[in-house]
Amino acid sequence: MTTYEHLKGFRDFYAPEMAARREVIDTVEGVAERYGFREIGTPRLERAAMWTDKSGDEIVDELYAFEDHGGRHVTLTPELTPTVARMYAAKSQELSKPVKWVSTRPFWRYEAVQQGRFREFYQTNVDIFGSSDPSADAEVLAVAADALTALGLDADDFEFRVSHRDILGSLLRSFDADVDVEDAIRAVDKSEKVSENEYLDLLADAGLGYDEAREFDDLLGVTDPANLDELTEFADSAALDDAVENLRAVLAAADDFGVGEHCDLSLRTARGLDYYTGTVFECFDSKGRVSRSVFGGGRYDDLIEQFGGQPTPAVGVAPGHSTLHLLLEEAGVYPDEELATDYYVLQVGDTRGVAARVARDLRAKGHVVETDVSDRSFGAQMGYADSINAETVVIVGEQDLANDEVTLKDMASGDQTTAPVDDFPGDRDRPTYGDYA
Amino acid sequence: MTTYEHLKGFRDFYAPEMAARREVIDTVEGVAERYGFREIGTPRLERAAMWTDKSGDEIVDELYAFEDHGGRHVTLTPELTPTVARMYAAKSQELSKPVKWVSTRPFWRYEAVQQGRFREFYQTNVDIFGSSDPSADAEVLAVAADALTALGLDADDFEFRVSHRDILGSLLRSFDADVDVEDAIRAVDKSEKVSENEYLDLLADAGLGYDEAREFDDLLGVTDPANLDELTEFADSAALDDAVENLRAVLAAADDFGVGEHCDLSLRTARGLDYYTGTVFECFDSKGRVSRSVFGGGRYDDLIEQFGGQPTPAVGVAPGHSTLHLLLEEAGVYPDEELATDYYVLQVGDTRGVAARVARDLRAKGHVVETDVSDRSFGAQMGYADSINAETVVIVGEQDLANDEVTLKDMASGDQTTAPVDDFPGDRDRPTYGDYA
Repeated sequence: MTTYEHLKGFRDFYAPEMAARREVIDTVEGVAERYGFREIGTPRLERAAMWTDKSGDEIVDELYAFEDHGGRHVTLTPELTPTVARMYAAKSQELSKPVKWVSTRPFWRYEAVQQGRFREFYQTNVDIFGSSDPSADAEVLAVAADALTALGLDADDFEFRVSHRDILGSLLRSFDADVDVEDAIRAVDKSEKVSENEYLDLLADAGLGYDEAREFDDLLGVTDPANLDELTEFADSAALDDAVENLRAVLAAADDFGVGEHCDLSLRTARGLDYYTGTVFECFDSKGRVSRSVFGGGRYDDLIEQFGGQPTPAVGVAPGHSTLHLLLEEAGVYPDEELATDYYVLQVGDTRGVAARVARDLRAKGHVVETDVSDRSFGAQMGYADSINAETVVIVGEQDLANDEVTLKDMASGDQTTAPVDDFPGDRDRPTYGDYA
Repeated sequence: MTTYEHLKGFRDFYAPEMAARREVIDTVEGVAERYGFREIGTPRLERAAMWTDKSGDEIVDELYAFEDHGGRHVTLTPELTPTVARMYAAKSQELSKPVKWVSTRPFWRYEAVQQGRFREFYQTNVDIFGSSDPSADAEVLAVAADALTALGLDADDFEFRVSHRDILGSLLRSFDADVDVEDAIRAVDKSEKVSENEYLDLLADAGLGYDEAREFDDLLGVTDPANLDELTEFADSAALDDAVENLRAVLAAADDFGVGEHCDLSLRTARGLDYYTGTVFECFDSKGRVSRSVFGGGRYDDLIEQFGGQPTPAVGVAPGHSTLHLLLEEAGVYPDEELATDYYVLQVGDTRGVAARVARDLRAKGHVVETDVSDRSFGAQMGYADSINAETVVIVGEQDLANDEVTLKDMASGDQTTAPVDDFPGDRDRPTYGDYA
């Protein structure tokens, strides 16, 4: 005899908890599906080079990577974007554009386990390929906002902090053409997690002078899109002008799509991954109950080409279910699911054949129906029916059957009555106590 | 630029194929759920010892096992049974018995890739814990049979070959108390895949004389449950008598549950895994179009205790979606799913705000609705609407809007008419061309 435990950072979901998770996942996927996103299925293992060649160092250190029996260097996938980029590149000729994909599945990163952060974690990925139009960025924001609303969150529960990689990049280059833009953007991404001095040091390491770093950070403080002119006037950069125009167009499209109220300009939001190119955004708890980013997304227009495809604009968002769970709990709207059972067919004496026929007929009408598979007493069966929240118990007893009857018991009221066995369930869609009392 | 491919034995599922897979998975899970099986969620990575300590050598050689960053010897799970045994053992006091669990997810084995066999493969696991009654074995058979019927297979498309580990074991011991029962049962499991001489050699290696091996195999040829008396008369073993009575009771319960016609006695069916104890069965294509076992299941009454729990009877089945796909294809009932879209809202000119309002209202009624997110021409949008099989195109054009109208186009007939924009979609659940023509 050995006792095993699940691995640290991995979780077992028992039935009631899984029912709540399923409800959340179905809600998020349902919103995406009504926007015309189509489910795909993706491998859980990929060549490790898909991350080691392209992603930031942070994610590489966290990979569950190993050599398979064939000597391939493989990894459990830490995120979906490179996989969907690979899939799009492989079939881009055959696919009708824009391509809109959704899927929910686990990912793995070897990270420190903390509240809302696990080593095996679930995300619903929502991506659009083949449109560079600001409407596509806005549609992704709209799916995310509608999903949160459908889950029961109010407008004052959450906000999307929207930024733009090209604004950050062209502003940085306006200080110094040789600045390491990726390093500087990673510094911006860390700015809320480190001290001001550490932040300025990181910007200095990326190639900015300390005065430049302070000025750069001041410029990122703009929160009104109208004030983005301060940046364009400061920098005199055509690339910056284009990026500002693009971000304004995304926010305008989000307004048209009915989700503008959830979107806040926040240039200090940068996202940690290197592959983002244009719009980036993160969802936060507006009331600060969840201190970290709930999830994020953005535009990654270069990745498909890097994966061997034609140059293809792309934008996506990936609600993560662990942090989303925290936010829903804090807001008091996490689903409270109990086991639900329409009928329990209780056997008294040697009545299994009739009970099984009744159970089959009820299942054929789409109901959740259990019957005894343990040869148990009346009391034990009734206790079990109660534990699974059976709405109606159909008692199939030898004595009743002698009168060609079964007994229906309404479990909420305790009321019971008899019904003719040959007419049960009969033509009724969902026969209950009231139909026969 | 680098081109990556998915790993050998791993698959990318694009949207139409995924829709068909989802249909199959939903059907199988739906049947189990109507029997009262409850969904659980399980980790994809476990301690490798859960397999290396207990399972046969074959599965251990195929593990995707490695050492994690914390020095733990872990493995991608090759099957679910040890995980659910661990989960049951961890919470058995709190769970209302019998516990009935269902889940669908991928598993991984490093095997030779062939038709219907992949290194990443999907199974729907259906298990009952806490009942030793033959009704539980039969309920698992009933779920599997009903699932195949719900998928469109006829009674003559498939059969369950039902055997019993205790019949095999006690019969083997009646020849020689020192026979290696596990080795001998593994030989039976391989009997269809090797030559007769190899089979007899394997039985001899397990401790049977060659004459005994032939006699043993002859006795396994019984196909009529009534003729199981030949075994009990031959062996004079109380354990064998009990096992025969148990198997007959399982088949009788399957009759009561309406699935007896799908169950054939077949003692040479043995199942490869060591942890099975009582009833074992495999599903086969009755017409031989798929030559291998489609999937299997059985009773594993010792495993919970081995995983640190109280002694707990358990029985389960795990339809594998790769071989099931082959069978459904061969039988001509694999779902043929196309993209389905209720509405495409087409924008002509600067009409995004109204188009977005119309799309939101239609989505709020539960429909799948796409609109332009690529700033494309009328013709390009119409081509896209056709490619996603839009049923109705709602044309929101500047000229129509000047008259407070939108145009509805029925894509099947090409007919079109106008509708008042302020009354679209209005109160109608699913407004189409016919409502306004």
